[in-house]
Amino acid sequence: MNTGELVELGRQLRVDSIRAAAAAGSGHPTSSMSAADLMAVLLARHLRYDFDRPAHPGNDRFVLSKGHASPLLYAAYKAAGAIDDEELLTFRKLGSRLEGHPTPRRLPWVETATGSLGQGLPVGVGIALSGKRLERADYRVWVLTGDSELAEGSVWEAAEHAAYEHLDNLVAIVDVNRLGQRGPTRHGHDLDAYARRFQAFGWHTVEVDGHDVDAIDRAYGEALSTRGQPTAILARTLKGKGVTDVEDREGLHGKPLKNADAAIEELGGVRGLRVQVHEPPAARALHSARTGGLELPRWERGEEVATRNAYGQALAALGTGRGDVVALDGEVSDSTRAEFFAKEHPDRYVECYIAEQQMVAAAVGLAARGWVPYASTFAAFLTRAYDFVRMASVSGAGVNLVGSHAGAAVGQDGPSQMGLEDLAMMRAVHGSTVLYPCDANQTAHLVATMAGLDGIRYLRTSRGDSPVIYGPDEEFPVGGSKVLRSSDQDRLTLVAAGVTVPEALAAADALAGEGIPVRVIDLYSVKPVDRLTLRQAAEDTGCLVTVEDHHPEGGLGDAVLDAFLDGRPVPRLVRLAVRTMPGSASPAEQLHAAGIDAESIAAAGRLLVEQAVVP
Amino acid sequence: MNTGELVELGRQLRVDSIRAAAAAGSGHPTSSMSAADLMAVLLARHLRYDFDRPAHPGNDRFVLSKGHASPLLYAAYKAAGAIDDEELLTFRKLGSRLEGHPTPRRLPWVETATGSLGQGLPVGVGIALSGKRLERADYRVWVLTGDSELAEGSVWEAAEHAAYEHLDNLVAIVDVNRLGQRGPTRHGHDLDAYARRFQAFGWHTVEVDGHDVDAIDRAYGEALSTRGQPTAILARTLKGKGVTDVEDREGLHGKPLKNADAAIEELGGVRGLRVQVHEPPAARALHSARTGGLELPRWERGEEVATRNAYGQALAALGTGRGDVVALDGEVSDSTRAEFFAKEHPDRYVECYIAEQQMVAAAVGLAARGWVPYASTFAAFLTRAYDFVRMASVSGAGVNLVGSHAGAAVGQDGPSQMGLEDLAMMRAVHGSTVLYPCDANQTAHLVATMAGLDGIRYLRTSRGDSPVIYGPDEEFPVGGSKVLRSSDQDRLTLVAAGVTVPEALAAADALAGEGIPVRVIDLYSVKPVDRLTLRQAAEDTGCLVTVEDHHPEGGLGDAVLDAFLDGRPVPRLVRLAVRTMPGSASPAEQLHAAGIDAESIAAAGRLLVEQAVVP
Repeated sequence: MNTGELVELGRQLRVDSIRAAAAAGSGHPTSSMSAADLMAVLLARHLRYDFDRPAHPGNDRFVLSKGHASPLLYAAYKAAGAIDDEELLTFRKLGSRLEGHPTPRRLPWVETATGSLGQGLPVGVGIALSGKRLERADYRVWVLTGDSELAEGSVWEAAEHAAYEHLDNLVAIVDVNRLGQRGPTRHGHDLDAYARRFQAFGWHTVEVDGHDVDAIDRAYGEALSTRGQPTAILARTLKGKGVTDVEDREGLHGKPLKNADAAIEELGGVRGLRVQVHEPPAARALHSARTGGLELPRWERGEEVATRNAYGQALAALGTGRGDVVALDGEVSDSTRAEFFAKEHPDRYVECYIAEQQMVAAAVGLAARGWVPYASTFAAFLTRAYDFVRMASVSGAGVNLVGSHAGAAVGQDGPSQMGLEDLAMMRAVHGSTVLYPCDANQTAHLVATMAGLDGIRYLRTSRGDSPVIYGPDEEFPVGGSKVLRSSDQDRLTLVAAGVTVPEALAAADALAGEGIPVRVIDLYSVKPVDRLTLRQAAEDTGCLVTVEDHHPEGGLGDAVLDAFLDGRPVPRLVRLAVRTMPGSASPAEQLHAAGIDAESIAAAGRLLVEQAVVP
Repeated sequence: MNTGELVELGRQLRVDSIRAAAAAGSGHPTSSMSAADLMAVLLARHLRYDFDRPAHPGNDRFVLSKGHASPLLYAAYKAAGAIDDEELLTFRKLGSRLEGHPTPRRLPWVETATGSLGQGLPVGVGIALSGKRLERADYRVWVLTGDSELAEGSVWEAAEHAAYEHLDNLVAIVDVNRLGQRGPTRHGHDLDAYARRFQAFGWHTVEVDGHDVDAIDRAYGEALSTRGQPTAILARTLKGKGVTDVEDREGLHGKPLKNADAAIEELGGVRGLRVQVHEPPAARALHSARTGGLELPRWERGEEVATRNAYGQALAALGTGRGDVVALDGEVSDSTRAEFFAKEHPDRYVECYIAEQQMVAAAVGLAARGWVPYASTFAAFLTRAYDFVRMASVSGAGVNLVGSHAGAAVGQDGPSQMGLEDLAMMRAVHGSTVLYPCDANQTAHLVATMAGLDGIRYLRTSRGDSPVIYGPDEEFPVGGSKVLRSSDQDRLTLVAAGVTVPEALAAADALAGEGIPVRVIDLYSVKPVDRLTLRQAAEDTGCLVTVEDHHPEGGLGDAVLDAFLDGRPVPRLVRLAVRTMPGSASPAEQLHAAGIDAESIAAAGRLLVEQAVVP
């Protein structure tokens, strides 16, 4: 396409953006119009992509970080022949693939769900990292981002990560239209302000008029010829560009144009330009997923092993057995034990330093390229990345997250280091799996099993040593549980997981000594939960005590109730959990203070059984 | 103190850090030792603080962002005479005020809890903002931060915010000891790398040898004389400085010294230096909290008003009634309606742009200075700040958080914009209050009530209009509920909140028409929950249906169960919630697809009642 055709294509993308939003009665046409020329030049001149084969390993990758500009993306799909005009006009309607914000669940050409701002560049870094370090492929990663979203710290975590990894296959195209949702951004059209920041973080920068197609073309060329560092193209644009009524005006964010017909006329009417997007170069696929047999580490009953140690050893073994497993950690690999993997598979280990949002985003990007990422930090610090976890679930991304140092059992370090909300946070994520092992063999099996699941999978590990209670060949299906004590006379069921399992066993022994036979269930699969076993226990024993090293809301206790929320009779229940704000103390003192140690469990069980006797 | 005495003081702080960690058997002495000279000069030469009157309005404010260096902080308290040597050696023990990471819950001189890295500077910005913009006081805010934690994006949100607000009362002291927990940082001792970043974000920077007390003194002086911008002092230091065995060595993070006695000897032994900290200048206290009567907005029954609109209007009115109310928003004030407050009280409105972590951190800083902050964004985007919310609860900070556009009822924008995990997230925070109003008058009353509560208070608002069903003088106590339909013959109870209340009422009407009388409870106080009313309903009707616009885990349904988890008989229960990943669709289509509209509620209720008849 020549200059004139590129200009025309930009106008077509604007017109189609306006039409899509008008048909929907909602959407963000003005945010689409500012970036239309940037998109036109990319699509027609630089992107290498086979829309018929989105999985082609040579395809460039495009991420629309400003996901609300979805009309522009869909208009581009139409121009490329990937969708037709009829589908374009289904925008935002029930059942349409063209959602308000694009998601890979619905559209094969979308790499990652966006719509929470400041996430596109972080995920793009993960994809670029895959291309450069793991796949050693030649594809480029283009991220179109807004200016407003550069206020998100996650963008600067990404900037730091990309420069440190010398990701010269990554281009950030910043649509500096100077207007956020409610008004002007901090820096308006001061391109230098953004350039200074990117440069300080180690990026190459290009400043450009974002409506001059030839200048844009040169800027993309400069980005592609830059070696050793990523490039940020800072493009001065106007929101609503090309339509007098809305151009560069405040108060019009996220609103269809009032007079769409006149606007379309001002832009020269509806066009039917088709872009012949460059074919991707021939490329080899990812290397084979399985490179050897899987030999998990084994421990004997009675050993004392921290589940975090078992995690690290199992992950290292999994990395040997599977060539598609990648590990990431947030500068605490000596604590999470991800270092065991890092030492054995340094080529597939990504050190993310203290930047949990970027760690999860990079994992999402790696998953988008077919890797099976395991990202670890303290359970407490995964809260830092909750929005990224949430958006990963919108993407349908297959990501393994591992939170160590869970609960008050951490001990002296105090509450800032204790994951006490992580089970609630992870359970509430759609389609998630939440696992909480109590011993080393169980941990190892679950680490291997996680790899094959869909969606977000969370594994909670503990700091201190705990006794190995299962043999190394025991199976631990997701959605299952283990009944550790059981008899026909059980008068009570204790439901525990992780560090509270040994406590529950000790409590059961104490109660048995008093003539109260007690069932004990190890609920290592917190979500999905083993409904049948819990219902059987309720039927057999009539009452349940749940005990968890977590705040009372949203954790193990609530998970158990899942088994009874379909209208069936519910057993009598007591929930033991961490109800206070812990301070510093030894792990044993912490469990006692929280009322979740063996003594407290036995006391609660005794009381519940006595209540049952005297109704 | 002269140079020699400052050097001695630095050594004393090191020795006492080593002693505290040795007594505890855990802790971070080497991270304390790198910053000891920075602390010594600050304490003896520049800090203005009355340890007997921590609430003195003229006191400087000190934030230890690298909270794990708590031994250094406590050693400084001892040198200032605030604690004695005996207390110093209680470090990290059960019941001690000297926790592993400092918290204001326990110590009056601590401004905010730290220990999750990258939070000190963001909160410090909030405090400095109070000093400069709201209190117009002369105090300075000193934040001692590590180098490793500069990888956190939140630090750059804070840097941006501070420079934008010209906070020349803020000094970041960066202890560049080049070593993180697991090894070297990305930039090692490259002070320029950090200086470039801070300068690009608009800060003044000073590079200094962090063990040269005279140079440090000059650097502090330069920071204090810098006008119009904050200053970052980049100090080259050595981890474990002064003890040959550990100085500048990897693998020693978070470990007491192996040979503490020899180390203390190498540092010249235990000293008893006392520092006479400068008195703060005379200062006036914050202006009076109440500046007028509170006149909340009023709506008549039958009006259609979005609860987010009611929030904005009520907050503006509250701001008129109370001079201590401050509002913050993350660049969506036109959506959350915080703009109503911003227009009426621009002096007490803080625009945080798209930086939710910084928004919550600034709110925590403002709360530390006695303000009553209300921070708002979409409920979905509060997930971005979860670690800050968690840490705010560790601080015991009194912060109001408001999440708008909750649930699938958002409609066409799709799942990225829908808060579907927010209730779970906020309920799991220790000591939190979670409120979810269904009409405008209820919203207004709750907005006013929130101001007087302790801890984290969360209000969930909705995008679309909803009918006003309460009179403007109705009361809505926290921990209460409203029974909207009730009779002696009720065979079922529907428990709803927010957008599902009108749906539940319609379902109840439909069921009543079929001869099934139904009780309806508006559970606007999700935490704490109205146990008595729920128990009464369970007793009267035998079965409950909960219905919520939220994922099934951790929300309203789990909150209801709180009333029954003490061993008492539990009613039969059905939980209706958003069990799928929504796409784009109209609000009504969304509620129907999720099975939480009137029709779905009636169907579930019918089934449950039929089950009850045939046991």
